[in-house]
Amino acid sequence: MSASEISPARVTLDPQTGVLRGAGVTESVKTLRQLAGYFRDEAARAAMDPETVLYRVQSYEPQPEGVEGAICCATTFLMPGRVGDEYFMTRGHYHAAQDRPEMEVTVSGEGVLVLMDENRQTRAEIMRPGSVHAVPPRTAHRVANIGTEPLVFVSYWPSETGHDYGEIVARGFSGRVRQINGKPALVPEPEA
Amino acid sequence: MSASEISPARVTLDPQTGVLRGAGVTESVKTLRQLAGYFRDEAARAAMDPETVLYRVQSYEPQPEGVEGAICCATTFLMPGRVGDEYFMTRGHYHAAQDRPEMEVTVSGEGVLVLMDENRQTRAEIMRPGSVHAVPPRTAHRVANIGTEPLVFVSYWPSETGHDYGEIVARGFSGRVRQINGKPALVPEPEA
Repeated sequence: MSASEISPARVTLDPQTGVLRGAGVTESVKTLRQLAGYFRDEAARAAMDPETVLYRVQSYEPQPEGVEGAICCATTFLMPGRVGDEYFMTRGHYHAAQDRPEMEVTVSGEGVLVLMDENRQTRAEIMRPGSVHAVPPRTAHRVANIGTEPLVFVSYWPSETGHDYGEIVARGFSGRVRQINGKPALVPEPEA
Repeated sequence: MSASEISPARVTLDPQTGVLRGAGVTESVKTLRQLAGYFRDEAARAAMDPETVLYRVQSYEPQPEGVEGAICCATTFLMPGRVGDEYFMTRGHYHAAQDRPEMEVTVSGEGVLVLMDENRQTRAEIMRPGSVHAVPPRTAHRVANIGTEPLVFVSYWPSETGHDYGEIVARGFSGRVRQINGKPALVPEPEA
């Protein structure tokens, strides 16, 4: 009887930095140019360098998007900054498979997780190192960086979930994370 | 127009230690007594202090087990040690919802993740700090601590998944992690 091989892990997630490395890890970048139309003050955005990196995402998806069979993870590195009085943020999305949930775990930095249900009711949770956040089904989610360093967090979701950005492109969120009197606040946003 | 509240997170996961804290976090303990029948050398197990703690698990399940709607997480603290030449290990299980996957992320220590498919084919992956492991559907999984300090890892799975321990109680795994010539090996285990 022979002892079998024990294989090395193909992917690593650095608990200090959130960096994902290994076979099958992909990376994408979003710049201010790619978020045209997302911020409240579009004129302020257009006046900034369009190549400014807003965030980078490293993803490990053991199954392709939309296909069952894995839990995926991704680390987002969201830069600090503002467009007018609105904090740098991710685009935000619903899930294509609307009944699918997600979990966020903050690695470093300070942020706000904005959650909007199907009735466009918006609420928000503070993200700090180690904070854990349950994103329920049928809930759009976006993250804003309210600190002075990069906000780093890891997302976990089922591979069949998929993303739906259309509703947010068309109607946005019903609340925005803005600096009001020097402090971050979730401010209701009337529809245009 | 008034600014809305931004709520604190209710749960935290310490990235250094893996400790989960907050509202809704539960904890369970498994002792050597509770793993009667799991180890190859039952006489060696029975000769040890039955109250020896093998592992502790801290869980955050935003939805009850078996109910859709959340990604759950749990940190396992698996002690170092052996029963005969077999390393301390978790019981191991299939998923009740057999098509559901899982992901493991190692925080600290050194271990082996044992994976057994429906045909009872067993393979294993080394767990080291930061290693990420995809557990496919229909795959029993068990973890062994091959190091000298506690092995700490975080598991992520969909809340509807559930556990199925019956098959493992009845038939065990087809391979065991044993110390052979001073080194850990995945050794095929013939069925009784």
